[in-house]
Amino acid sequence: MSDITMIDAAAARLAGHARRTPLLTSPFLDEIAGRPVYVKAECLQHTGSFKFRGAWNAVSALKPAGVLAYSSGNHAQGVALAAKLHGIPAVIVMPADSPAIKLANTRALGAEVITYDRATVDRDALGAKIASERGLTLIKPFDMAEVIAGQGTTGLEIAEQAAEAGVTVAEVLVPCGGGGLTSGIALALAARARGMVVRPCEPEGFDDVARSQAAGQRLRNERLSGSICDAIITPETGDLTWPLLRDLCGPGLVVSEDEALRAMALAHDRLKIVLEPGGAVALAAALFRPGTGPVIAVASGGNVDRAMMARALAT
Amino acid sequence: MSDITMIDAAAARLAGHARRTPLLTSPFLDEIAGRPVYVKAECLQHTGSFKFRGAWNAVSALKPAGVLAYSSGNHAQGVALAAKLHGIPAVIVMPADSPAIKLANTRALGAEVITYDRATVDRDALGAKIASERGLTLIKPFDMAEVIAGQGTTGLEIAEQAAEAGVTVAEVLVPCGGGGLTSGIALALAARARGMVVRPCEPEGFDDVARSQAAGQRLRNERLSGSICDAIITPETGDLTWPLLRDLCGPGLVVSEDEALRAMALAHDRLKIVLEPGGAVALAAALFRPGTGPVIAVASGGNVDRAMMARALAT
Repeated sequence: MSDITMIDAAAARLAGHARRTPLLTSPFLDEIAGRPVYVKAECLQHTGSFKFRGAWNAVSALKPAGVLAYSSGNHAQGVALAAKLHGIPAVIVMPADSPAIKLANTRALGAEVITYDRATVDRDALGAKIASERGLTLIKPFDMAEVIAGQGTTGLEIAEQAAEAGVTVAEVLVPCGGGGLTSGIALALAARARGMVVRPCEPEGFDDVARSQAAGQRLRNERLSGSICDAIITPETGDLTWPLLRDLCGPGLVVSEDEALRAMALAHDRLKIVLEPGGAVALAAALFRPGTGPVIAVASGGNVDRAMMARALAT
Repeated sequence: MSDITMIDAAAARLAGHARRTPLLTSPFLDEIAGRPVYVKAECLQHTGSFKFRGAWNAVSALKPAGVLAYSSGNHAQGVALAAKLHGIPAVIVMPADSPAIKLANTRALGAEVITYDRATVDRDALGAKIASERGLTLIKPFDMAEVIAGQGTTGLEIAEQAAEAGVTVAEVLVPCGGGGLTSGIALALAARARGMVVRPCEPEGFDDVARSQAAGQRLRNERLSGSICDAIITPETGDLTWPLLRDLCGPGLVVSEDEALRAMALAHDRLKIVLEPGGAVALAAALFRPGTGPVIAVASGGNVDRAMMARALAT
């Protein structure tokens, strides 16, 4: 199980390797929200999302001879770059029908991409076979203590940067898929910023975390695809992340796809940062849901294609 | 005349008020350029450009009762916010064809905006007249020692951040209009990073600095409007900035509007930052002009209308 000691150890491993991303503000966003808004710009992290933190920490801590990951998105790029910088091979197992640009980006970061036919091939069996044959270590996208600890370093930085801005009591809104980032931040803030409450943020139709919190038990999303917020569409939270989300977090917030797109456009206009829809749901909740006192929104990723950004800018 | 002592004093005044903007990288940009590329993301500065630095320093140092500025937009916002935060009034004289976002933002930051026709009216004369009538202190956009010193703090940060990344010998490319940012950075690096050479970057058709350097004397632009790089089209450099550009800088680089738009799209894709065309010319030169060894491009501003960003994303 992850704890603050593991997060501190992760921060030491990440020092000089991960970026200390800025905490941005704009008086125009404060006016929209009706309260002070702070944005932790993890889109500026290496590979364009927070995923590099957990990937770097896992690779650095476990010292594997090589790594394997399943992902067509941000986790793939984080693992690929972390492995490359450690000088070890990375194999990323991706569906053959993944977008060409995602296949190309993952390969360009030095990973070997193995594609499979998602209609006929069992991904887990294929991955296990490759890992076994080649002696590779599986790096899970969220339900892994080293990964949660790595993502939790975002929370350490939030606590420090908010305190520098004079903020010690705040809501901290976090885009939530499997819950690695949210639970890591919640662990860090429970230890270092007791006045802050973490709230998971999700898109409509994929609000398994908010529903699970309300029900007091882990629930699944009914649909597994069909959202522009692809980065945070996960069937359910993990065995490690769910108890942390249940015990450490305030109630989840849910926003529409249109609100996520509007938050992307406002981040473009007012903060000069590029967000993907899934990375913008916490900012959307900060801007468009009522609340009092300072609110800190984690902008978790910016890996958006040009057409989707153009769509956001047309809202 | 500005010098390193004034820049150090400016850095002390700006501490805790201006952002220390990150120095960003992407392996994808390195591959395009064929050499390591570092991007100083001043678009993330307060008001979306480096201009806040010089404005804050001038207002903080001179302690005026009220200020006036004439500006195509970024200087306007910088002065407006600096004045607002110092609790003094600001009048801004702006071209009528400034991007709508810049006009609206300047007013929203509490300034009184007076517009004029860029092609027919001498803004210096108009600004001096209003300042005299109302008893305001003119904050010039570039040819003012306190402003140059404020912009020069960007150079101090570049020297420190590049050294942290192991870079002490590099070309430093800077978008150049009147030359306040370029000459301030050149002064800072001449004192603190002797291995770095500053090169001004301009759009085609508005390359007065490159032509002036080649001719050994200050020349003017023939046209005074008609570029998408509105932030950096200035009739000529200043009495203070020209000698610094002439004596401290390497040869200027010139890029096309299309190259600036392509650099904006690549900054979107690879760095997750929003640049305006004029703020992207140095990155364009870094990516699309040959060179050896590390190159540091200053991304000087991100105040771009949504329509212009959509145009860049369609390139």
